[in-house]
Amino acid sequence: MARWQPDARGRLRQAAFELYGEHGFDRTTVAQIAERAGLTERTFYRHFADKREVVFSGEVHRVLVSTLADAPAAMTAMEAVTAALDAAGAVLDKRRDMTRRRQAVIAANPSLQQGEQVKYAMLAADMAEALRGRGVEPLSARLAADAGVAVFRAAFERWIDEDEKRDFGRLARDTLDELAAVIRR
Amino acid sequence: MARWQPDARGRLRQAAFELYGEHGFDRTTVAQIAERAGLTERTFYRHFADKREVVFSGEVHRVLVSTLADAPAAMTAMEAVTAALDAAGAVLDKRRDMTRRRQAVIAANPSLQQGEQVKYAMLAADMAEALRGRGVEPLSARLAADAGVAVFRAAFERWIDEDEKRDFGRLARDTLDELAAVIRR
Repeated sequence: MARWQPDARGRLRQAAFELYGEHGFDRTTVAQIAERAGLTERTFYRHFADKREVVFSGEVHRVLVSTLADAPAAMTAMEAVTAALDAAGAVLDKRRDMTRRRQAVIAANPSLQQGEQVKYAMLAADMAEALRGRGVEPLSARLAADAGVAVFRAAFERWIDEDEKRDFGRLARDTLDELAAVIRR
Repeated sequence: MARWQPDARGRLRQAAFELYGEHGFDRTTVAQIAERAGLTERTFYRHFADKREVVFSGEVHRVLVSTLADAPAAMTAMEAVTAALDAAGAVLDKRRDMTRRRQAVIAANPSLQQGEQVKYAMLAADMAEALRGRGVEPLSARLAADAGVAVFRAAFERWIDEDEKRDFGRLARDTLDELAAVIRR
């Protein structure tokens, strides 16, 4: 096997979601994932701590939090949250089919569903911290982060629907407008 | 022991939170809780499935969801959510000290913290369902429920602070106003 493996991480993820879909998450082994990707287990463990981390690798989480932290200082909390949702959309739109497969895997496994809830709670906490780092007062930071996660989740659920063609950023902005309207009424 | 035990449930809860605080949740047994409350284990199991259910008994959850479901039909989604927060506050304000002890127990135990995140996710789902039952369109129902849970959690965190004297309903309304302001900005 060549030492240089183009996009080993992407191939491992692709193989993992195929296998999770075919045999279920619990019955899939790291050895099977590596074999399907044409890579070694050793390579798998260079990219992921375990088969669960393939599901919760956290790229979108990191993009949301770092975009919030780095957004121009003049932006309000919700402007920065909107910029973060756009940046997350740019990542998600490139992997829409794979993300649909990932969600089907999570939907089929109660332990992964619980894991997802916990990850969203951690995301809200990290977004609130990033906003406080921008000088946003703690209560506002927390509410803006929770609103951002609520909008992310609702937009995400629309976005993974097979019949939905609009990109994530568009759906997130529409969802944020809807949240504002619901709260005003 | 008398067969008639006034407020056995309240005494068991009181005893449980004392013991969880003294020895930790993991090292407390149902036998110890029953003994401290002056009741039998059998009585404990008439009120709670296990020692975890004492922490997550779900009264506030039920009050939030049933108030939403039963609110006057003329109320908008957020008006019904506000009524639900007020009703939850009426329950919480009666047991403020015990709820502070409960939160200290959760804060000391990662497994209970995860359980709390999962319970909040279930609360949001049940509130959204109650709103859909009122005829609210699914996306709006979900966003109003998520906003309600975000406000509940932020208000709750202020309310359990030892120095905070305002009642829960007051804090929830202030927090909802702050959420509306954060989203508008």
